[in-house]
Amino acid sequence: MVIVMEKSATPEQVRRVEEKLKDRGFSTHLSQGVERTIIGAIGDRDAALMESLATLSGVERVVPILKPFKLCSREFKGEDTVVRVGDVEIGGGELQVIAGPCAVESREGFLEVAEMVKAAGATVLRGGAFKPRTSPYSFQGLEEEGLKILREARQLTGLPVITEVMDPRLVSTVCEYVDVLQIGARNMQNFFLLREVGKIKSPVVLKRGPSATIEEWLMAAEYIISSGNTNVILCERGIRTFETYTRNTLDLAAVPLVKQLTHLPVLVDPSHGTGKWKLVGPMACAAVAAGCDGLMVEVHQNPSEALSDGPQSLTPSNFERMMENVRRVFEAVSCAS
Amino acid sequence: MVIVMEKSATPEQVRRVEEKLKDRGFSTHLSQGVERTIIGAIGDRDAALMESLATLSGVERVVPILKPFKLCSREFKGEDTVVRVGDVEIGGGELQVIAGPCAVESREGFLEVAEMVKAAGATVLRGGAFKPRTSPYSFQGLEEEGLKILREARQLTGLPVITEVMDPRLVSTVCEYVDVLQIGARNMQNFFLLREVGKIKSPVVLKRGPSATIEEWLMAAEYIISSGNTNVILCERGIRTFETYTRNTLDLAAVPLVKQLTHLPVLVDPSHGTGKWKLVGPMACAAVAAGCDGLMVEVHQNPSEALSDGPQSLTPSNFERMMENVRRVFEAVSCAS
Amino acid sequence: MVIVMEKSATPEQVRRVEEKLKDRGFSTHLSQGVERTIIGAIGDRDAALMESLATLSGVERVVPILKPFKLCSREFKGEDTVVRVGDVEIGGGELQVIAGPCAVESREGFLEVAEMVKAAGATVLRGGAFKPRTSPYSFQGLEEEGLKILREARQLTGLPVITEVMDPRLVSTVCEYVDVLQIGARNMQNFFLLREVGKIKSPVVLKRGPSATIEEWLMAAEYIISSGNTNVILCERGIRTFETYTRNTLDLAAVPLVKQLTHLPVLVDPSHGTGKWKLVGPMACAAVAAGCDGLMVEVHQNPSEALSDGPQSLTPSNFERMMENVRRVFEAVSCAS
Amino acid sequence: MVIVMEKSATPEQVRRVEEKLKDRGFSTHLSQGVERTIIGAIGDRDAALMESLATLSGVERVVPILKPFKLCSREFKGEDTVVRVGDVEIGGGELQVIAGPCAVESREGFLEVAEMVKAAGATVLRGGAFKPRTSPYSFQGLEEEGLKILREARQLTGLPVITEVMDPRLVSTVCEYVDVLQIGARNMQNFFLLREVGKIKSPVVLKRGPSATIEEWLMAAEYIISSGNTNVILCERGIRTFETYTRNTLDLAAVPLVKQLTHLPVLVDPSHGTGKWKLVGPMACAAVAAGCDGLMVEVHQNPSEALSDGPQSLTPSNFERMMENVRRVFEAVSCAS
Repeated sequence: MVIVMEKSATPEQVRRVEEKLKDRGFSTHLSQGVERTIIGAIGDRDAALMESLATLSGVERVVPILKPFKLCSREFKGEDTVVRVGDVEIGGGELQVIAGPCAVESREGFLEVAEMVKAAGATVLRGGAFKPRTSPYSFQGLEEEGLKILREARQLTGLPVITEVMDPRLVSTVCEYVDVLQIGARNMQNFFLLREVGKIKSPVVLKRGPSATIEEWLMAAEYIISSGNTNVILCERGIRTFETYTRNTLDLAAVPLVKQLTHLPVLVDPSHGTGKWKLVGPMACAAVAAGCDGLMVEVHQNPSEALSDGPQSLTPSNFERMMENVRRVFEAVSCAS
Repeated sequence: MVIVMEKSATPEQVRRVEEKLKDRGFSTHLSQGVERTIIGAIGDRDAALMESLATLSGVERVVPILKPFKLCSREFKGEDTVVRVGDVEIGGGELQVIAGPCAVESREGFLEVAEMVKAAGATVLRGGAFKPRTSPYSFQGLEEEGLKILREARQLTGLPVITEVMDPRLVSTVCEYVDVLQIGARNMQNFFLLREVGKIKSPVVLKRGPSATIEEWLMAAEYIISSGNTNVILCERGIRTFETYTRNTLDLAAVPLVKQLTHLPVLVDPSHGTGKWKLVGPMACAAVAAGCDGLMVEVHQNPSEALSDGPQSLTPSNFERMMENVRRVFEAVSCAS
Repeated sequence: MVIVMEKSATPEQVRRVEEKLKDRGFSTHLSQGVERTIIGAIGDRDAALMESLATLSGVERVVPILKPFKLCSREFKGEDTVVRVGDVEIGGGELQVIAGPCAVESREGFLEVAEMVKAAGATVLRGGAFKPRTSPYSFQGLEEEGLKILREARQLTGLPVITEVMDPRLVSTVCEYVDVLQIGARNMQNFFLLREVGKIKSPVVLKRGPSATIEEWLMAAEYIISSGNTNVILCERGIRTFETYTRNTLDLAAVPLVKQLTHLPVLVDPSHGTGKWKLVGPMACAAVAAGCDGLMVEVHQNPSEALSDGPQSLTPSNFERMMENVRRVFEAVSCAS
Repeated sequence: MVIVMEKSATPEQVRRVEEKLKDRGFSTHLSQGVERTIIGAIGDRDAALMESLATLSGVERVVPILKPFKLCSREFKGEDTVVRVGDVEIGGGELQVIAGPCAVESREGFLEVAEMVKAAGATVLRGGAFKPRTSPYSFQGLEEEGLKILREARQLTGLPVITEVMDPRLVSTVCEYVDVLQIGARNMQNFFLLREVGKIKSPVVLKRGPSATIEEWLMAAEYIISSGNTNVILCERGIRTFETYTRNTLDLAAVPLVKQLTHLPVLVDPSHGTGKWKLVGPMACAAVAAGCDGLMVEVHQNPSEALSDGPQSLTPSNFERMMENVRRVFEAVSCAS
C-alpha cells in the first residue's frame, strides 16, 4: 500500500506511520517530494491496518496496491475453472443456457416448459421455489413443494436444475433436490449464507448485487471459496443506475473484465438485466459476443399469466428464436482471432 | 392503476385488457384520446396483475397509482409511531443518540467507551458482535462473546443496547442479550431475516440499503410490520452513487420525505453516511436540522486502533463536541414555525 | 396525463383541477375509487401544465402518458432514417465504422493513422480538433490547424471525416472542413449549441450524456430536428455509475431500445464506453450483436505517446483484429430470424 | 504518482517505465515486493503522462497522488475567499440568501416577487432570462427582455441580481445587466463558456453538474480561475442517483468537504436539489447546519401559474417561514465549538 501524507505533515507524523508499518512487519520506502511525502509499504493487503493508518494525524489517504481478492484471482490460478453440473461443463468452452420460469408455479406448467426449453437447446433448468419479492404481499414461491417439482423435472428431462436459496437454514434441504444453488443478487453480501454454501460441494451461481462493484462481487466469491467450495460461477444480471426505461443496466463490460481478473466462469442474465422481453434476445446475443460462458434466461409458456417476472419472460417460441441467433453469434466469436 | 395502450392498439386488444381487469374485480374507465387509449382501473394494487397486464399485446405500460406500502404509510396511521427502547422513546419528540464503536473488540475497551458516550449524552449504546465485512479475511466480530459484553455494558450504564443481527438462526439468541436489533444495510432485502424479526417484539432498526429506493426501504419495513412487529425504526445511512470522495452519499432529503410518507421514526447514521470522521459532526447537525428523530454515531476511544471503521469513528472528545453542536441545532429546529 | 389526487382531497380540490384542465382545452375523465380519485386528461403533453397541476392543493402527483419526444419517435415516422455521409449510409443496413485518434496531434501522425484505419475497413475518419478536457492544464487540441489536417486526410483517403464542435460560434467554421459534426457527451444538453447545429444541413452525431436518461437524450435529438436538421445519428458511449473499474458503464440495452423508440440510426463508442483498450474488442462485438448501425473507435498508431485517451486507444493491428471479429458477428446477426 | 506493475512484469518493462519518468524530469523510487513492483514518481501531476504510462506493457495501473486542482485548493491559498456582490459578501461569515423565481416571466410579476423576497430577508435576487429546458417545446425565457426586467428590479430593490448564461456569445451582454453570472449544472463542463466567464471580472456561481464528481466540479472552477477570474462561488444543487422520489439527491456532505478542499465559498440550492417545495425548508436548514455560506431558493408568488419549476417553488409566505427557521439554525451553528 501507499500512504500519502498531507502537505503539512511533520517529520514526527511521518515517523509514526513508518513505525506502525514496521511493527506490523512491513518494509517501507520513503519518497519525499516538494509537494508530498509518500510512504510505500510492502506486505500483504490488510484492510484493518489500512483503516488504522488512515486515521493517524498527517495522513491524507491510504492507497491499496494489491487487489483484495486472492483465491478467485487469475494470478492465484492461471487456467480457467470449469464447473461441472451433472454432465454439463460451465466454463469449458461450450455455451451453456439455463432457462425456465422465474418461479415454479405448478407441476404441470413447470414440466411443460421444462420440456419446451430442453427441446430448444437449454442445458440447465431454472425455477424458483423460494422467491425474494420486494412486497410481502406478492407470491413468495411454492417452497418445498416447488423443490419436489424441480426434482421431477430433472428426472423427466435429464437436465440438471438450479434454484435460489435465501435462508442459511435451508441450504442442506435445497441441496437434496437440486444440482446448483443460486445466490440471488439481493443476497450477494449475505455473508452467513455465503459461508453456508461454502461448506457444501454443489456448484453455486453467484449473482452480482445491483449495487455491487466488481471488486465486491469477487470478494463475495472469495467468501465461498475460502469456506471450501471452489465451484463458483459468477452471473452478471444488471446494476442499478439512474436509467428507468430498463429494470437494470446490464454491465456487459463486466464479462471480459471478470475473465481477465479471475479464473471463474461467468454467465449473463439478460432477463433481469433488462426487465423487458423484447430486449432479451438482442442482449443475449450481445452477452455471447462479449465472451460469456453461458446465459440465464426466463421462459414462461404464458408470460401474461406468470405470477412473477412476466414482462421479462420469453415465450417458448421467442426462446427458440433467441437460441438460433445466439448460436450463430457464438460460432462467430468462437473462431475469433 | 392506469393502463396505457400503444398508439396502434386495436379495439380487440383494449377489450382484452378490460376483461382481464373485470375478471379480477376491478372497475374500469376508458379514456380514448387521439394519441392513446388509456384505461383507469380502480381496486387494490396488485403487483402480479400489473406485470400480467404489461405483457398483453397492445399494452405500452402500466402505471401504478396507489403506493405499494400500506401498514407503514401515513395514510394507514396518521399519528407518529413512538418506539420504546427501555426508558428511551424514539420518535417521541426528543432527540435520541445511539453511540458506540463499530464492533465490540474487547470487554475493557467497550465498557470504557460506553461510559464515555453516556457521559457525553448518548441514550442508547451500539456495538457490533457479528460484523458484515466485505472481505472474509477481515475481523468478523466476537460473536456471542460480544453479546455478553453488550449485556454487561447495559448493566453498567443503564443504557439500552443495540446490535446487528445477520442470520435468522441467531435472532432469538441476540434478543436475549440486547434491547434493539439492527438490520444492516446489506440485509435490508433479506426477506427471511425480515420475517424472523417480524415475529419478535423487540424494536428493530432497519437501515436503508445502499441501492434501495425509498419505496423499497418502506416495503422492507412492511415485511416486518406485516409479520407482526410494529416497533420499526428507519435509519438512513447513505446510498451508493458515483461520488467516491465519501463512502456513501447521505440522502438527507429522505428524512422529511419519510416523515411525510410514513408514521415510523427515522434516524440518520452520519458515520457510514460519509465514511470520514471530519464530516460526521457537520452531517449530524444537518440531519437534525432536516428533522430526524435521532442519530447513530460510531465512537471509538482510539480510532487508529479500531478493528473496523476507524476512519469514520469519532474520538470521545470529538463526540462530546458533536453533541453540543447537535443540541443547539435541535433546539433551533424544535421551536420552528 | 393522469392526475392522482391525495386520499384526503376534497371535492372542491378535484373540481379545481378539472377546471384548470378544461381551461387548457383538455377533456377529462374522473375515476373515483375508494382509495383515490384520479383524473385522466386527454390532450397534448404540456410540461408547464403538468408542473402547474402538481402544485395545486390536493394533488399527489401527475403522471405523463404520452412520451415527450415527437419528431424523432417511431410513431411519428415508421421507417428507419438513413443518414448519408459522403458515400456512406448510416442506418441503411451496412455496419459503418468511424475510427481514428482521440485528437489530431500532428499532420504526419494523423495522415498515417488515417490510411491505416482505412486499410482495416473504417468507413469514416474521426479526430478531435477542439478537445473538451476535464483539466485546463491538459492538451486542448490544435483547433483550426487540426481542422485543416482533417480536410487533408479526407482528400488523401477519400473517407468522410467527423470532428466535435463545442462552441456555437464555431459551427459554421467547422462545417467548412468536415462532413459530420459531433456533439460530445458533455454538451448533450447545451441547448444553444443544439439549436445551432439544427440550422445546418450536415449530419450530426449526438452522443449520450454520461448522466442522461434515454428520454433526455431523445429530447436533445428533438432540439436538433425541430430546429430543421433531420440528419441526426445517436451514439451510446457509456453512462456514469458507481462502478470504477471501467471509465463508464456501456449501456448496450439502449441500442435495441432506441431502435424501438425512434427512427434514428444509433452508433456505439466502446472506447469511451470502457476506457480500457482490452475491453474495446469484446464490447465492439457485443454492440454489433445488440444491433447497432455502426461503431466509433479510437485508434492511435502509438497509444503510449497519445496526448489524450491513450489507455482506451487501439493500435492499428488491434483495430484490424477487432474489425475481423466484428465483421463475423455482424454477419451472424444480419441473417438473424 | 505511483505506478503499479503487473505481477508478471519483467525487469525490462520496469526499466522502460523508469526511463520514461526520468525523461520527463521525475525522480523515481522503486519498491520491490514479493507480489508487485511499484514505482513512486515525484513531480507535478500530468494527466497525459499518466495515461501514457498506463499503456506501457507490464503496467497494471497508475495511481495519482497529487490532486489535479491547484488554484482553487486550500493548499494553494489557506484563507477563505470572500466574493463581493455589490454590498453583499459571500463567504465572509454572513449567511446570504439568493431568491426569486426560476424564470423571469413578466415585468409586474418579477418586480412583485422581488420586493417580497427582499422583505423576507433575501440579499440577492435571482431570475432566469435564458432557460435551459429539457424539451424544445417548453418556455425558453424572455431573453434580453428578461435581462432588462432584472436590471429594473435591481434599481427598485437595491439588491444585486444573478442570472444564468448559457451561450459564450452572450457573456458580455449579460454582464451589462446583472451583477453575478450563473453557470448552470448542465454547462458545468462547457469549457468554452467557462473560459469566457474566466475573462470577465463579475462573480460567477458555478453549479455542480448532476453527474459531476467533486473533483470534476473543482476542475471546472479551475478553468475559470486559471482564465483570470477568481470570483468563483460554488453551488451544490443535487446529483443524479437511482432515487426518483426526489428530482436530485442533494449531496450535503459536499459542503464541509469542499470547505476543506478549497478556499471558495459554497452555496446550496435546495429547490433543484429536491424538486419538491415541501422538502425545501428542511433541506435549507440542513444545508445551513452543514456549514454552507448561503442558499439559492426558488420563490414564485403563485407556483401553480409558474412557467417552470412550479413544484419546487416556495410561495412568499413559505419563504418567509423558511427564512425564520434558517436564521435560527444559522445562529445555532455560528456559535459552534
